[in-house]
Amino acid sequence: MKPRAGTVYLVGAGPGAPDLLTLRAARLIERADIVFHDALVHPDTIALAARAITVAVGKRHGAHSTAQVFINKRLIDAARRHAVVVRLKGGDPMLFGRAQEELDALDAAGIACEVVPGVTAAQAAAAELRVSLTRRGISRSVAFATPRVGRDESPSDWSAALTRADTAVLYMAANEAAPVAARLLALGRPRDWPVAIVESASLKGKREFMTLEALARDGAGARSGPTLILFGEVLRDALARADAVPERHCVAA
Amino acid sequence: MKPRAGTVYLVGAGPGAPDLLTLRAARLIERADIVFHDALVHPDTIALAARAITVAVGKRHGAHSTAQVFINKRLIDAARRHAVVVRLKGGDPMLFGRAQEELDALDAAGIACEVVPGVTAAQAAAAELRVSLTRRGISRSVAFATPRVGRDESPSDWSAALTRADTAVLYMAANEAAPVAARLLALGRPRDWPVAIVESASLKGKREFMTLEALARDGAGARSGPTLILFGEVLRDALARADAVPERHCVAA
Repeated sequence: MKPRAGTVYLVGAGPGAPDLLTLRAARLIERADIVFHDALVHPDTIALAARAITVAVGKRHGAHSTAQVFINKRLIDAARRHAVVVRLKGGDPMLFGRAQEELDALDAAGIACEVVPGVTAAQAAAAELRVSLTRRGISRSVAFATPRVGRDESPSDWSAALTRADTAVLYMAANEAAPVAARLLALGRPRDWPVAIVESASLKGKREFMTLEALARDGAGARSGPTLILFGEVLRDALARADAVPERHCVAA
Repeated sequence: MKPRAGTVYLVGAGPGAPDLLTLRAARLIERADIVFHDALVHPDTIALAARAITVAVGKRHGAHSTAQVFINKRLIDAARRHAVVVRLKGGDPMLFGRAQEELDALDAAGIACEVVPGVTAAQAAAAELRVSLTRRGISRSVAFATPRVGRDESPSDWSAALTRADTAVLYMAANEAAPVAARLLALGRPRDWPVAIVESASLKGKREFMTLEALARDGAGARSGPTLILFGEVLRDALARADAVPERHCVAA
């Protein structure tokens, strides 16, 4: 008889700050026999894995990425040897985490699997900027998307969701920020549509406010961490306060 | 001289299950002098407030809601008497949490305020259904929205975001599920667009799969907890598995 396999937990590590992990995730990491983690998971989070083998599976902006098929295979092999296997992913596994490929592979292999949600970067950015993504009378809808500029737009047009939601957050878009903004302008979004750039949400990094027009002209600039671009009228007050700062400095000087 | 006021923390309590709280939220609740919580926050989460006065401010689906202005005033008064004031909100404060009204009132009163993000119900529903909201080749965009059927659509049309995003999640929509679905059909969404209904995500409650056409005909049915409606091709496999269950039962019988 085949020995009973362990369970694989696809766990969201949250946006970056180690204390934005959920209690459930922390307990699973503490109990884990083996932890496979993305390159961007905080060292303090990995350090919770007191009794586990820890394995970096190196997905970082698509660069140096271990092939997904190989990760799937390692998860299946690990579940055949260990009771508690944790696959730790930055943010929330079900938002831009490619979790479905791992879930489907585990299902096909007959391995039990559970998903533990995590705070995603957009939520951490909103908290830090103190700008609610929804707001009575201003925003009833929020879209999260990844752009695909100048490539095949099928099966879906990433920009359509952004032009129709009241608030929009783009993941993995900073390198293409200028063409993304140009596209949104061409689709009719206003030139003064407020934009925020948040690098390494919940950790240290750049926070900037600008208009859509300025983003189309200047792009998102140099960055060293994963960067979100937020768009929407909900950011109008924050943009106005940011614009006011130089004048205030003048008055104070 | 005016005594220095405390800090108000707007804290996300997560989707329902008490262990889906973040570590930061748990530590703040444990340290709090006073906790103001929504009616839907889990009793075990409130029980973490070992040394605090706990006050229910009773927002539950808009019914029996203490007026927002009165909540704002209580937060300000509390911050003038206590060092650590926690305002505990279901889900994530920055998504459908009306946090901006509290933040703005606290700012106007000169009270320090921080926001702690939380896992929102849509993320817990995706984890439980084991359906990633984004998926390579199928979904590059996700919209979260609240509908407003038969009322003034300005300043934004809730349905526009839903018709253009690959995956959509509606909050606070279960009572209007049939007219919402009819509207999406009228706007061109396919009759067989997969739909999931998730009541009390992360806790016990109804989980159902159906097509958009069936939702327009039957609505979301009776429910006892907060209910999400999810839409999208990412749900196609889960819908097919759910449809297959009756046949399987027949075979087994």
